[in-house]
Amino acid sequence: MPEMLQPIPPNIIDDAVIAALEEDGAYDDVTTAALVRGDQWGRGIIVARAAGVVAGLPVAAAAMTAIDDSVSFDTLVEDGERVGPGAELAEIEGRLSAILACERVALNFLQRMSGIATLTRDFVDAVRGTNASILDTRKTAPSLRHFERYAVRAGGGRSHRFNLAAGVLIKDNHIAAVRQRGVAHLGEVVAQARAGVPHTMRIEIEVTTLDEVQEALEGGADIILLDNMSVDEISSAVRMIGGKALVEASGGVTLDNVAAIAETGVSYISVGRLTHSAPALDMSLELGGV
Amino acid sequence: MPEMLQPIPPNIIDDAVIAALEEDGAYDDVTTAALVRGDQWGRGIIVARAAGVVAGLPVAAAAMTAIDDSVSFDTLVEDGERVGPGAELAEIEGRLSAILACERVALNFLQRMSGIATLTRDFVDAVRGTNASILDTRKTAPSLRHFERYAVRAGGGRSHRFNLAAGVLIKDNHIAAVRQRGVAHLGEVVAQARAGVPHTMRIEIEVTTLDEVQEALEGGADIILLDNMSVDEISSAVRMIGGKALVEASGGVTLDNVAAIAETGVSYISVGRLTHSAPALDMSLELGGV
Amino acid sequence: MPEMLQPIPPNIIDDAVIAALEEDGAYDDVTTAALVRGDQWGRGIIVARAAGVVAGLPVAAAAMTAIDDSVSFDTLVEDGERVGPGAELAEIEGRLSAILACERVALNFLQRMSGIATLTRDFVDAVRGTNASILDTRKTAPSLRHFERYAVRAGGGRSHRFNLAAGVLIKDNHIAAVRQRGVAHLGEVVAQARAGVPHTMRIEIEVTTLDEVQEALEGGADIILLDNMSVDEISSAVRMIGGKALVEASGGVTLDNVAAIAETGVSYISVGRLTHSAPALDMSLELGGV
Amino acid sequence: MPEMLQPIPPNIIDDAVIAALEEDGAYDDVTTAALVRGDQWGRGIIVARAAGVVAGLPVAAAAMTAIDDSVSFDTLVEDGERVGPGAELAEIEGRLSAILACERVALNFLQRMSGIATLTRDFVDAVRGTNASILDTRKTAPSLRHFERYAVRAGGGRSHRFNLAAGVLIKDNHIAAVRQRGVAHLGEVVAQARAGVPHTMRIEIEVTTLDEVQEALEGGADIILLDNMSVDEISSAVRMIGGKALVEASGGVTLDNVAAIAETGVSYISVGRLTHSAPALDMSLELGGV
Amino acid sequence: MPEMLQPIPPNIIDDAVIAALEEDGAYDDVTTAALVRGDQWGRGIIVARAAGVVAGLPVAAAAMTAIDDSVSFDTLVEDGERVGPGAELAEIEGRLSAILACERVALNFLQRMSGIATLTRDFVDAVRGTNASILDTRKTAPSLRHFERYAVRAGGGRSHRFNLAAGVLIKDNHIAAVRQRGVAHLGEVVAQARAGVPHTMRIEIEVTTLDEVQEALEGGADIILLDNMSVDEISSAVRMIGGKALVEASGGVTLDNVAAIAETGVSYISVGRLTHSAPALDMSLELGGV
Amino acid sequence: MPEMLQPIPPNIIDDAVIAALEEDGAYDDVTTAALVRGDQWGRGIIVARAAGVVAGLPVAAAAMTAIDDSVSFDTLVEDGERVGPGAELAEIEGRLSAILACERVALNFLQRMSGIATLTRDFVDAVRGTNASILDTRKTAPSLRHFERYAVRAGGGRSHRFNLAAGVLIKDNHIAAVRQRGVAHLGEVVAQARAGVPHTMRIEIEVTTLDEVQEALEGGADIILLDNMSVDEISSAVRMIGGKALVEASGGVTLDNVAAIAETGVSYISVGRLTHSAPALDMSLELGGV
Repeated sequence: MPEMLQPIPPNIIDDAVIAALEEDGAYDDVTTAALVRGDQWGRGIIVARAAGVVAGLPVAAAAMTAIDDSVSFDTLVEDGERVGPGAELAEIEGRLSAILACERVALNFLQRMSGIATLTRDFVDAVRGTNASILDTRKTAPSLRHFERYAVRAGGGRSHRFNLAAGVLIKDNHIAAVRQRGVAHLGEVVAQARAGVPHTMRIEIEVTTLDEVQEALEGGADIILLDNMSVDEISSAVRMIGGKALVEASGGVTLDNVAAIAETGVSYISVGRLTHSAPALDMSLELGGV
Repeated sequence: MPEMLQPIPPNIIDDAVIAALEEDGAYDDVTTAALVRGDQWGRGIIVARAAGVVAGLPVAAAAMTAIDDSVSFDTLVEDGERVGPGAELAEIEGRLSAILACERVALNFLQRMSGIATLTRDFVDAVRGTNASILDTRKTAPSLRHFERYAVRAGGGRSHRFNLAAGVLIKDNHIAAVRQRGVAHLGEVVAQARAGVPHTMRIEIEVTTLDEVQEALEGGADIILLDNMSVDEISSAVRMIGGKALVEASGGVTLDNVAAIAETGVSYISVGRLTHSAPALDMSLELGGV
Repeated sequence: MPEMLQPIPPNIIDDAVIAALEEDGAYDDVTTAALVRGDQWGRGIIVARAAGVVAGLPVAAAAMTAIDDSVSFDTLVEDGERVGPGAELAEIEGRLSAILACERVALNFLQRMSGIATLTRDFVDAVRGTNASILDTRKTAPSLRHFERYAVRAGGGRSHRFNLAAGVLIKDNHIAAVRQRGVAHLGEVVAQARAGVPHTMRIEIEVTTLDEVQEALEGGADIILLDNMSVDEISSAVRMIGGKALVEASGGVTLDNVAAIAETGVSYISVGRLTHSAPALDMSLELGGV
Repeated sequence: MPEMLQPIPPNIIDDAVIAALEEDGAYDDVTTAALVRGDQWGRGIIVARAAGVVAGLPVAAAAMTAIDDSVSFDTLVEDGERVGPGAELAEIEGRLSAILACERVALNFLQRMSGIATLTRDFVDAVRGTNASILDTRKTAPSLRHFERYAVRAGGGRSHRFNLAAGVLIKDNHIAAVRQRGVAHLGEVVAQARAGVPHTMRIEIEVTTLDEVQEALEGGADIILLDNMSVDEISSAVRMIGGKALVEASGGVTLDNVAAIAETGVSYISVGRLTHSAPALDMSLELGGV
Repeated sequence: MPEMLQPIPPNIIDDAVIAALEEDGAYDDVTTAALVRGDQWGRGIIVARAAGVVAGLPVAAAAMTAIDDSVSFDTLVEDGERVGPGAELAEIEGRLSAILACERVALNFLQRMSGIATLTRDFVDAVRGTNASILDTRKTAPSLRHFERYAVRAGGGRSHRFNLAAGVLIKDNHIAAVRQRGVAHLGEVVAQARAGVPHTMRIEIEVTTLDEVQEALEGGADIILLDNMSVDEISSAVRMIGGKALVEASGGVTLDNVAAIAETGVSYISVGRLTHSAPALDMSLELGGV
Repeated sequence: MPEMLQPIPPNIIDDAVIAALEEDGAYDDVTTAALVRGDQWGRGIIVARAAGVVAGLPVAAAAMTAIDDSVSFDTLVEDGERVGPGAELAEIEGRLSAILACERVALNFLQRMSGIATLTRDFVDAVRGTNASILDTRKTAPSLRHFERYAVRAGGGRSHRFNLAAGVLIKDNHIAAVRQRGVAHLGEVVAQARAGVPHTMRIEIEVTTLDEVQEALEGGADIILLDNMSVDEISSAVRMIGGKALVEASGGVTLDNVAAIAETGVSYISVGRLTHSAPALDMSLELGGV
């Protein structure tokens, strides 16, 4: 079984890095142009300023080397590794003007992704010993989903469906829409979804009560998402389902309650805050030998 | 003087919204396609789930209305307004399938931007009564800088230079680069920058000691950025500068120390965490009348 | 249950139409520029020249109206409708120069898509009365998959996974890859796939012998794809599977053998030739009243 | 005289290949990611499954090598070569995950283009011994015209004008447009075209009767396109024209009638079905040594 | 015969205008944002500051109205019209901030195009009474060819082939290339070109001596381009050709010698300086009623 | 201090070159395809046909080498160098078909940019011995600003603000807009601008009378732009300003009056005609050894 961290497609990285460098004016850095000669060389180390889990080194590498072939980027740790404050993460060497122009973009990716990996690892550690996997959600920064999902994986989490095209999740509003057409039972909603999507997709449905769990089971749902239920309700639901469907919990999951949720026996816990609220991990580029 | 919040350029909004909808598979939402008929209509309210400052309504509007002309988006509050939990922010009405396909992208923008505005407002409130302005930095999510700077403005902050092309900021590594060529005095560094950039730009230089402040002053720096200095050092620097240059403080600024920094008399305090570490503001779309 | 034909996303249509018009030089049609005045008006009918099933009218409409707001496009039949030779499909009216510049692109889409819908309908008709659905494959014209899958749906077929990101299909080469790592049993291959993909996806595996069917069943495969088996083998496989997995047949399916395959009880028959080898349906634009 | 097959511009190939790989989700192949390790190597042969003429090897090469530098593609035959079933066309070697992710796109191009080359060769063979050249038309798959015209050339056909900007062809609707302005004689239509287009272009006009042939000749048309005429009418037209203009025939050309048409003495026969209705040539990638 | 000035395709205009506005930072005009409120309205007139021929009003209109729907642009003269200093060309009205942000881009297009039209008109006037047409060349500003050719047409000139794909012109280096392969006679060069290009294209060949003219005639060249010949040589060539080919003159054509060249009887005179060296026509936007 | 000519960002060059080659049909050069074999090699020299200052060699190099790796481009002079007629500027060698397809685009960039550098050098030479610098303006060819500003620098000029986002310049229409809101004094206009733009930008204001100079000074303007003033007025203004602000002159600057303006003591003279009206420098590619 492949244990390696599945990488972000290189073209996704390259496009995002170029867009970010253009946004930051890296191709027209007036300060550097005025003060640094094209023949000056530099060497530096990216250093962590706080403890955490690193994620995004290939992206930072792409950013640092995007505008000048002379720049090299050597990683000193691996994505997914836990480091302490002061840890040296990568060594950069090459044309100084290029390093200075790209530094901020490289760090912006790396700090943000490492922040997500760090928070994810805390959740993963909290459920260790249970059967629950920590999942990401679609609550990611617009246009940065590949990067943030990768960071979750680097932190030890797993990936939920990539987007609306890659998986089925029937939410409350979908159910209301079907009910508007006179259908009352969730089993029938599941059946309609089954009939309308490619047969390669499982049907996941979001429920909020035990009655709904029962209906979803009767309809043959493949996955039942328990949304915003209490730990006790989740326990009851897991027992009621009894292995006849996969069980996912979601809604209001924090580091305080995630272990209790995991111990109910759910297989998956999806956590929005992994991506929408993780603080960045502090880092800096220390240039020497300039 | 224009007091209105300067908007994000519409084409920037449109491009980002389309990219985010494509990333999220909104044009190929298999669940909605299977369960919602094209002639079903919906109406809903975006509701805040926590207290905070709203930012991003025009972006959410663009996202909700991007793929179907039938969808309307009416704002019930204004960007920059402080709201409590339960506050109704906007009303959406139109083809249900389009609303469901775009909901997540609209909320992803709105929650993230409102989180930034909320944190910014806390900093702005903390320095109220002083002469200090709270500034953003370049530590923004890649490709989302226009959105995050707007959110800072909605929170009451001001904008620093947009990027490397729009302003001069001589940092430690630039200074080191000049020194590598045999120049010892910061005044000469300032002069070289002056000679090499368009005359429409001020020269800002980052310093870390009072000696460096002195050299920067001798070189005629327009703005002196005091980086990672203690409050006492900042006070001394402000006195030494005595109005001969603008003064900005930066580095390690938190809600705990920002008031003290502001009271030293600095004009600007730039705060990276406004954008790199603000948690999202919780919101949801409540659909009724489906 | 939504019975309407799921449309192609409008932005996909618009982008493809613009690209095709640019490819065809429609914005610089030298013949029309020399011979047709900007104030000349035209009206015409798109007429079928052979019997078949129509598909692509919204695409043809987008093409005919793309470069001049004055052009209207009124459909006279619906996509999915069977028509005979001479049938009038749509009426176009507006600035003559724009109609002439866009005519070929509009027909290129419409004839190709209608050809696919026509061939699909033949297959669908051939299996009528059985439980089998006719599916498309990934053997589509590069960059035209949305259009060709829509045409299959218009013909009465169903959509398989959209692409490699939207569903799991373990093919012979994947199996060989796992075996290279020392795994011998297909059940273990299924398990590895299960562990590595989002939990929202079913696991489909391609097999060619009854022994492999047995292993796939033991591994809990959700869907078993019987590749290039004889009708007798398929019958045996269906009996062996006995409802414990979904069954799909593929490989060498023609109008001659599809009914026999369907009568074995398989649920899905995927047919590459629907898209890679369907001849275009002949049509023309008859202009009158010029 | 350059006898080599004029290649498709490399940037056209690269853009189309990238677009097709993105469409197919090749950068996010969930099955391969779950089952194939990044360090597994593969080697395979593309094999023809039917007799035909090969076209598209440089495109298939670009597709197979697009996402991983480790992949090599060695052609074993040349574009334009006739092969039998079982013929080995190319050998691929490199990172297995990349080969599996790109296989379908490479084959989609190669099978489609070879199908066109095969059908073209049949037409070319049918007119061998006459002076007629087989030409393509603008009835190509949207956005794939460069590829399909190349396939026609590989089959021995010649290229008509690339698009509306690259040549003049006055069709019935253009004639009607001029008549709407009170002009009755085709000679005047030809003259108006002559006056309005760059002097580097010949004037070709489509006619359907011998009277129209006469008018076109009087107007000095450079090329007369005989549209949908019987073989007898074509013969009469060729005699009437007597070398005073080039003669092209078109409309309803099949393998059954193309020889007879060619024997009338026309110089060019343009055949829409070469591109709009050619069935794909069956091929597969046989991986060994995995 | 359509006498109207053939317009630039609207999508070409729109794309170029958006690119130019982005280049000019019009979406982030810091001065206007600081000084002009969003609810301020303006009205202004574009005024010519020198005599000349106007070209580019539709482009200026697209630029002025690109970022705000409130802005109207009413033309007061037509493209191709000759105006004197002080002439009012167009009236603009709408949101003041949008007018100010777009003004420079609109004028940059309009002044440059009008400069070209003005210079072209001078050449056209100089050959009035002869049979010669003034043609543009491919010596246009990169990416602005559609605009500059339109300006030439507005000035009364005609369009040569659009680019390398739209017409055949055998230049000295092509001839040398064929000779490298052992071919000595220009007639054979013409024949090889004829065999290798679509039959819809005429063959134009560049010659510099009367001997070459003779060879080109023997080869049946459709157009003979007399390059850098003296007026006497051109006269001899025209007599030698005697109507058996079209004749074009080029090279070192100025307002001083163009009449003499035209009087030799050539049909076409192509003039590079129309586009590569025309000075801009001075204009300004006079805002009133602000 | 870096004395090297600041280069154009490579990605800007590459994108512009590709766009220009596509515009010119270089990927589909029908003449070359018909006459030049793919295995023919060529070597040539770019030769100046008039005296001037060279600019754009890296752009020409990018154009000549863009579509074929076999082509080499060796510069024989440097950008910024003054050359006479007949000077050899660069040597090109490689696949002949690629050289011929790209020649015109390479020369179009090089001739245009060298024309600008040549005119700039004339202005720079005219003010030698004074303290005035010659500046470019925003009156550049749409989408070619990076290229034209670089050419100005190659000629010895300096760069003004890149665009509306990169600097503040309060023009007459901005002043009128503020006055519309009841503000009468330019000092207040300056203050409003100061309050609304990033603190890293200087405030430049355009004035036309000495009274306005006085108000601007009172408002603390950083730069005062004297627009369309006579030399005498400029002298008076420079005395009045007395070093309290930077002084720039603009409007109607020619080679005849620029020295007189410079001798008034202004620091900057911005000249629109450098970019909007510079004639191209004549050049050609001389191929030998074909």
